[in-house]
Amino acid sequence: MQTLTIDLGARSYPILIGPGLSETAWAERAPLLGRRVCIVSNEVVAPLYLERVCAAIAKVGADTTALVLPDGESFKNGATLDRIYDHLLAQRCDRSTPIVALGGGVIGDLAGFAAATYQRGVPFIQMPTTLLAQVDSSVGGKTGINHPLGKNMIGAFWQPRLVVADTDTLKTLPDRELSAGLAEVIKYGLIRDLPFLAWIEAHLDRLMARDPEALTVAIERSCANKAEVVAADELETAQEGGRALLNLGHTFGHAIETGAGYGNWLHGEAVAAGTMMACELSRRLGWLSDKEVERVRALLLRARLPVTGPALGADRYIDLMGHDKKVIAGRLRLVLLKRLGEAVTWAGAAETEIRAAIETCCA
Amino acid sequence: MQTLTIDLGARSYPILIGPGLSETAWAERAPLLGRRVCIVSNEVVAPLYLERVCAAIAKVGADTTALVLPDGESFKNGATLDRIYDHLLAQRCDRSTPIVALGGGVIGDLAGFAAATYQRGVPFIQMPTTLLAQVDSSVGGKTGINHPLGKNMIGAFWQPRLVVADTDTLKTLPDRELSAGLAEVIKYGLIRDLPFLAWIEAHLDRLMARDPEALTVAIERSCANKAEVVAADELETAQEGGRALLNLGHTFGHAIETGAGYGNWLHGEAVAAGTMMACELSRRLGWLSDKEVERVRALLLRARLPVTGPALGADRYIDLMGHDKKVIAGRLRLVLLKRLGEAVTWAGAAETEIRAAIETCCA
Repeated sequence: MQTLTIDLGARSYPILIGPGLSETAWAERAPLLGRRVCIVSNEVVAPLYLERVCAAIAKVGADTTALVLPDGESFKNGATLDRIYDHLLAQRCDRSTPIVALGGGVIGDLAGFAAATYQRGVPFIQMPTTLLAQVDSSVGGKTGINHPLGKNMIGAFWQPRLVVADTDTLKTLPDRELSAGLAEVIKYGLIRDLPFLAWIEAHLDRLMARDPEALTVAIERSCANKAEVVAADELETAQEGGRALLNLGHTFGHAIETGAGYGNWLHGEAVAAGTMMACELSRRLGWLSDKEVERVRALLLRARLPVTGPALGADRYIDLMGHDKKVIAGRLRLVLLKRLGEAVTWAGAAETEIRAAIETCCA
Repeated sequence: MQTLTIDLGARSYPILIGPGLSETAWAERAPLLGRRVCIVSNEVVAPLYLERVCAAIAKVGADTTALVLPDGESFKNGATLDRIYDHLLAQRCDRSTPIVALGGGVIGDLAGFAAATYQRGVPFIQMPTTLLAQVDSSVGGKTGINHPLGKNMIGAFWQPRLVVADTDTLKTLPDRELSAGLAEVIKYGLIRDLPFLAWIEAHLDRLMARDPEALTVAIERSCANKAEVVAADELETAQEGGRALLNLGHTFGHAIETGAGYGNWLHGEAVAAGTMMACELSRRLGWLSDKEVERVRALLLRARLPVTGPALGADRYIDLMGHDKKVIAGRLRLVLLKRLGEAVTWAGAAETEIRAAIETCCA
């Protein structure tokens, strides 16, 4: 087992990474669980893991109440959130009852936002079961739901007390979800860790074959990168750089997800296509060479990720991107690559160039 | 103008109290307003004050967009919250757009929760227009909405950047709302400021007659008391005492509000009847004398406040109180009076005594 710490003063918390942790993580953590915990999961993950997690938690003396939600980004909305609130109230969960998110990014975002807002905040534990959630969404405290006009538009920063990344759960992950997770792994290399990018290129076949050792290294290195960024800029308030850099490809990607209808594109897939748009725009600004853009494209393709977005038309992209949270005081701030391994936030790109980059990277 | 400060480190903020501040507060605060602000108000307050507030804000160079909601506690719910989100997105408000709550406690709670959760948090400004909001709900960062199963069950702590209490707005306040606000003023005397309680008794006639000077003293002293309590226990995490003491009468009161249907009782009215239940229980515990309970009752009656709750039956009260946030690990923690001017949190009251106190104080 590897343990990393997100250093946020009084809100610091450990990330545990390793096989079998769904069952073995609890023995030393009975005080955090208290008398009772509420587990939120989904219809795909619950049949695989819910029973063993409940049994392991019962062993250390806590009762469990579970809520199983439908699966998918299209359910990351206010109606599903209300189902969580209704359950918490019907079960008389109180301010001392931790909420445990057992699932991927959607469950983590939903359950985390419920934890942030139920009775003005209750303890929260992340048990990510997808690669994407283990390397990215379960760490750092971003929670929220989608709005018909924009992804993650309603939410809160609410740090978990603990993240338990059981790498065994990746054995049952669909291929498409594995690839989607790799999009975020590759992101860390592109924005701030060029040696890691080279490592990913060298080990991609092992990662695609789900080699446990390679996956553990990738998760740990991704979380270590994220931990540094989050500790320096917890609430994404830095004027330049900071936490926003984690959103490489995300402003384009959110437009793809919203424009294509939530659930048709996996988040990681949209980020992959969005990353190509960011690379293409960086190339047009003279920051990346043709060869470097090609290097990124080749890696994403090897990870079986899309490198073009849906043909929504540049107008629609621009319109959807205008709702993105990266708009500050009316200007669209994009995360671009100054070079491979170094991202910047940039509000100076001309709209004509943004449009051209989108058009170049549409199917 | 009086200025108080809520001392919360990086989240400290001023409370301005005085006549005419809706118009005069902004000249020195253009940077806080930025390019544009979103004002949330209701159908009663907006016709009286919205235009002049917009004009005053325009004078310092900020645009305004306004949303006018229906009035009343029965609208403090998820559906109304969604109307705020829809407006913010349709108007393309971004993370730099402050939300201004212009109204009473309901508008402050709704707009504040929207500010806490829109794009994971935007700046928030309180402009309380009722006595209750000026002395209590606009200060301290509690925001939220009701759930059919309990009051304020969904919410967040989100501190405003500024509170502007224009005492001129009290001139248009309905009598019933003035009385409701006095319930919270009296609360500060009962829980921690016996000299203030005596001052209120001596000046109640002037307060009921809306003497501006007396009202300003009452608001300032109430806010000063609240500021001390909030600064010491911002997130209500103290095991004993702390911020929870501000909820004297509120656990009983929330049961009244929920049981009677949101909107039939004003919050301050329910708090008044709930305060009598808390006093009666304190008497049964041997902490208050008959004479002291009578002193509280007499003052509430002079303020034209109810001193008995609706006859829901003790079972229904107990059931509704079981949903209150003051339940921790299954035990009902009540705020009671050890003596006049000194409140305590107490989980040791027998249910039979709680029932008896409720029955004694029901119509």
